[in-house]
Amino acid sequence: MTDSQGASLRLADIAAAVGGTVQGDGERRVSSIAPLDRAGAGQLSFLALPKYVPLLADSQAEAVLVSPEFKDAPGRCAHRIVVAKPQEAILALLPLMYRQPVRPFVGVHPTAVVDPSATIDADVCIEAFCVVGAGARIGRGAWIGAQCVIGDGAQLGADVRLHPQVTLYPRVVLGDRTAIHSGSRIGSDGFGYVFRDGAHQKIPHVGGCVIGRDVEIGANCAIDRGSIDDTVIGDGTKIDNLVHIAHNVRIGRLCLLTAQAGIAGSARLGDGVVMAGQSGISGHVTVGDKVTLTARTAVISDIPAGETWGGYPARPHREQMRSFAALAKLPDWMKRVERALRDASPSREDETP
Amino acid sequence: MTDSQGASLRLADIAAAVGGTVQGDGERRVSSIAPLDRAGAGQLSFLALPKYVPLLADSQAEAVLVSPEFKDAPGRCAHRIVVAKPQEAILALLPLMYRQPVRPFVGVHPTAVVDPSATIDADVCIEAFCVVGAGARIGRGAWIGAQCVIGDGAQLGADVRLHPQVTLYPRVVLGDRTAIHSGSRIGSDGFGYVFRDGAHQKIPHVGGCVIGRDVEIGANCAIDRGSIDDTVIGDGTKIDNLVHIAHNVRIGRLCLLTAQAGIAGSARLGDGVVMAGQSGISGHVTVGDKVTLTARTAVISDIPAGETWGGYPARPHREQMRSFAALAKLPDWMKRVERALRDASPSREDETP
Amino acid sequence: MTDSQGASLRLADIAAAVGGTVQGDGERRVSSIAPLDRAGAGQLSFLALPKYVPLLADSQAEAVLVSPEFKDAPGRCAHRIVVAKPQEAILALLPLMYRQPVRPFVGVHPTAVVDPSATIDADVCIEAFCVVGAGARIGRGAWIGAQCVIGDGAQLGADVRLHPQVTLYPRVVLGDRTAIHSGSRIGSDGFGYVFRDGAHQKIPHVGGCVIGRDVEIGANCAIDRGSIDDTVIGDGTKIDNLVHIAHNVRIGRLCLLTAQAGIAGSARLGDGVVMAGQSGISGHVTVGDKVTLTARTAVISDIPAGETWGGYPARPHREQMRSFAALAKLPDWMKRVERALRDASPSREDETP
Repeated sequence: MTDSQGASLRLADIAAAVGGTVQGDGERRVSSIAPLDRAGAGQLSFLALPKYVPLLADSQAEAVLVSPEFKDAPGRCAHRIVVAKPQEAILALLPLMYRQPVRPFVGVHPTAVVDPSATIDADVCIEAFCVVGAGARIGRGAWIGAQCVIGDGAQLGADVRLHPQVTLYPRVVLGDRTAIHSGSRIGSDGFGYVFRDGAHQKIPHVGGCVIGRDVEIGANCAIDRGSIDDTVIGDGTKIDNLVHIAHNVRIGRLCLLTAQAGIAGSARLGDGVVMAGQSGISGHVTVGDKVTLTARTAVISDIPAGETWGGYPARPHREQMRSFAALAKLPDWMKRVERALRDASPSREDETP
Repeated sequence: MTDSQGASLRLADIAAAVGGTVQGDGERRVSSIAPLDRAGAGQLSFLALPKYVPLLADSQAEAVLVSPEFKDAPGRCAHRIVVAKPQEAILALLPLMYRQPVRPFVGVHPTAVVDPSATIDADVCIEAFCVVGAGARIGRGAWIGAQCVIGDGAQLGADVRLHPQVTLYPRVVLGDRTAIHSGSRIGSDGFGYVFRDGAHQKIPHVGGCVIGRDVEIGANCAIDRGSIDDTVIGDGTKIDNLVHIAHNVRIGRLCLLTAQAGIAGSARLGDGVVMAGQSGISGHVTVGDKVTLTARTAVISDIPAGETWGGYPARPHREQMRSFAALAKLPDWMKRVERALRDASPSREDETP
Repeated sequence: MTDSQGASLRLADIAAAVGGTVQGDGERRVSSIAPLDRAGAGQLSFLALPKYVPLLADSQAEAVLVSPEFKDAPGRCAHRIVVAKPQEAILALLPLMYRQPVRPFVGVHPTAVVDPSATIDADVCIEAFCVVGAGARIGRGAWIGAQCVIGDGAQLGADVRLHPQVTLYPRVVLGDRTAIHSGSRIGSDGFGYVFRDGAHQKIPHVGGCVIGRDVEIGANCAIDRGSIDDTVIGDGTKIDNLVHIAHNVRIGRLCLLTAQAGIAGSARLGDGVVMAGQSGISGHVTVGDKVTLTARTAVISDIPAGETWGGYPARPHREQMRSFAALAKLPDWMKRVERALRDASPSREDETP
């Protein structure tokens, strides 16, 4: 267990903060949180689901947040805080116990190479070995991790956070408070060629890549710029690791794109779309607001708003589940039908030459 | 809309360049291109497909390239250039209107660390924080973006372009005019182990990784070196983002590998193979010339030249489509067959004990 | 063929090293290894499988390791070493012929930025432009490639190898002899949000990311830290390129995770699990010891130890193969059943209104 040291808190104070009651010693202190089977001295754990009750027995946690039905469940740990929803209590405690990561300094690291024509707000942190191109603008509050490359003319709003080794191609636009994890590439050329004279001739990509406000992008993603149009990602959309977004794609607000999802060129996603892991959307397809795609779904046609689709090629989830169930029993069922057909036509076999 | 400023061109000059005729004011000027629903003052748009006619009505574009059948379609914008194929006209205009990106300088950035035994042509641009290893060779015209790592003994032909943060492992070979987008890793060790003495023992990877001429590789790809053999990618092949190519794979000329495709070890691809998004090819399989794999296809056996395959496990596309259609109607059809079998054997139910 | 120069060895010495017998001139020398169809002068090749016998005919290899049944197979190359298992012989020869890559120097490159509070063993190599954070610890024997970022408080055991441009987020732990290929990101925030007040609110990720001993991780992978729990990868596990591992995942010892595999949050994998390429495991699922997942498998439920599963949704491989076979013949079979049902109920058609 890594020691992510938090603030030391009294159980009584924790109970007050989350609206719970202490059972045991309210003066005890905890300074970090861990699951039942990994928690030790000085650590707070929690129990909310019946399946984890057995883990309470041997848990070495200093104290445990429990829901009322488990307040007397057997276990080594006598110090408990009884609260209606332990998981929500944990979420409320996290900011009290753990300091948010903060910028190591304000200013530009002496090793960074910043073009003189870039506009850098005074209240920024640009870490070691960053490269900032001509005409780029970085708004106040930014935290640019080590070894980021910010292309010519890129525009970063306020409070943007780039983790280390992010590449923003020229003219990429990032809205306020948008965060990008390590290794993601924003604004690379899309995959567009015309076959002519015996070769795939590259289509120049002169469009932009416009990322909204409050977007978070995971590690090692690739988001292409538009060819002539822009690639656009709406405010509040969250993107997991290793996601691919092709040229000219337009994604609405508050979408969730889970790891290894991929979206082909010129697809349109409405607001609140959820793509589960390893799902994909074909080019030029329109996916309506609040559509959910289950894991590994491959969309090849438009989907109306509000629906849940799955499978390959994607269909409404319920239909897809019926097909999967039918497929699972198909081999045995085929045999049974063959038998029944023979029984139904007893003379059939004789008829065959 | 990001302002990708192009050259300001008169409509009359554009019409002359693309073989069209001006309808409206030929003296008007445009300096960039955008789709109908995003274009504004000073921007040229285009209309080629009937489905986009409604967007013309409210388009704020300064001028529009239209095909003859839409020359009088209703719309705010009175200045039009009528041309047989507006999309081809746009492709022809792009190089006139937009300057190709050019190297910011010629020479080696003072922060770059270049081994004295490397051979660097005088006509190269090596940007900030690059690392060039012992014995590496970089040909004339190269543009090496910031923070690239070029391993010992790597050989780069003429006019190679590496976008920022590319890694070339030792002894990688790149042909003339090959371009690699940000974050791609070329020549990493393949995934090869032998289980012995209770551990997965690593097989040393002493093979090479040879990329041909005029290849383009997208962002965040991973292309392994060979174990004993080389990994080879043929001239003119284009590779999208987040593609994985394993050790000893040999890919022919002029292939297109779309995003998130993966090729397992020692597979062989002929010339002109097209892999659509998220498709995969198993190890040691041979895929013939001009084979097309539809999106999400998983190949586990050889495919003859010229065929289109799909599905998992991959089969000829037409057969696969028939199976998918059958699967979609299977649940209801099963019910109908059960009913028909009961009808056909009315005494059946009585027979069951 | 790239010239990966090895040591020059006499055939007689090679035969002695691998327990084989020379056929031809034992004084001949070879200094590298290549497959039959690519080998040339001075190169050793091998022939173990009947399918490659035709390649022997024209092989330009200087010498060939052959299994006894092929010792007289026709071919240009007269100098052969007959050995029971040529492939194992090659593996034994690799370390004799090829030098393992070695650190270019011992010490910290003058361009690296190392926080004064970091603890760096004297016997390390930290290459150009690395950034090492506050409180980080790097054990003896480490080889940290160019442009790596090692976050605050990260703990690296002995003999760790990071290839160029790896990011370790704060507090990541790596065991002894663990190797990470270029571009992998370890310890990034997991994909966790709570929808509240009209936005996806980020759940702080305060857990750790603990990688065991003798782990190897391929290029451009993304392994998230835990939310409250840790993400844990067991000793001796090997991970291929572009693999995604989400927050709180626990992976046992000696697993093999092939390229583009993905594991969703809080999944548990036992020891010796094999995930073939592009396979995926859903969140909170438990996969037992020594389970094998075939390529492209999508697991959505627990799997008992020792089983081989495939398909989507995953089922036991044998069942899945039966379903795939049934699906392939389904369209024609449906037609046949329809016909048989009509034959079995000749009056049926008349009954329809």
